[in-house]
Amino acid sequence: MPQLPLPDELDELVARANPAVVATARPDGAPHTAATWYDWENGRVLLNMDETRARLQHMRENPRVSVTIFDGDDWGRHVTLLGSVISIDSDGDLADIDRLAVRYTGQPFGTRDRKRVTAWMQPDFWSSWPLPGSLHL
Amino acid sequence: MPQLPLPDELDELVARANPAVVATARPDGAPHTAATWYDWENGRVLLNMDETRARLQHMRENPRVSVTIFDGDDWGRHVTLLGSVISIDSDGDLADIDRLAVRYTGQPFGTRDRKRVTAWMQPDFWSSWPLPGSLHL
Repeated sequence: MPQLPLPDELDELVARANPAVVATARPDGAPHTAATWYDWENGRVLLNMDETRARLQHMRENPRVSVTIFDGDDWGRHVTLLGSVISIDSDGDLADIDRLAVRYTGQPFGTRDRKRVTAWMQPDFWSSWPLPGSLHL
Repeated sequence: MPQLPLPDELDELVARANPAVVATARPDGAPHTAATWYDWENGRVLLNMDETRARLQHMRENPRVSVTIFDGDDWGRHVTLLGSVISIDSDGDLADIDRLAVRYTGQPFGTRDRKRVTAWMQPDFWSSWPLPGSLHL
């Protein structure tokens, strides 16, 4: 699989607010998937979770993650990023989940009384369908 | 997480030809994701891959898989199935990939000169968003 950075046309796809799935590894080695909001900044993926989410515990024990992002306007197009979580921090003021909520819904996050946690993922490799160059975005 | 069978409203969602992501575990324990076609029959998930796909090798070594399925008409709705691959067989006559291609595109699969492999997944647990009962399909 090719390494980052992404070709421009895939970078542009990933930069939009698209549907995505993040996979983590459970302690027993089984993969675990969850639909997720994300943001894309300087080649890194912003993820944010309620502090009770299983995938947060998985990330703390095994930072390897994989994210598949669909083009929300044409779900025959998708990009997968394999990499690792490089930081996990409390989203104490809900700034990161608000950033994601505004990106996806246009409004701040509705639930204000739950603790949230932010994880930044550094992708190492990518794949896409179709291959870049056959995408006409 | 609740066990199968799925509530009727989620069974109906999963039965439609929706966008999905399948996660496998690499031999080094890292999760790996890929967008996939699938079908749903008697509570099991049909997957089909070109025989060179990394995820096929992963499944042969570790049968645990996780699949997240979006409602293609409403990205905010999704179902995740955690389980194991219970069979892996050659799709010698391409019947299974044709079944998936017809389901998703209305036509048999275009590529006829590549070997394909079918895997059936038996889900053990599910989760969904929103919770069943708040879905009005």
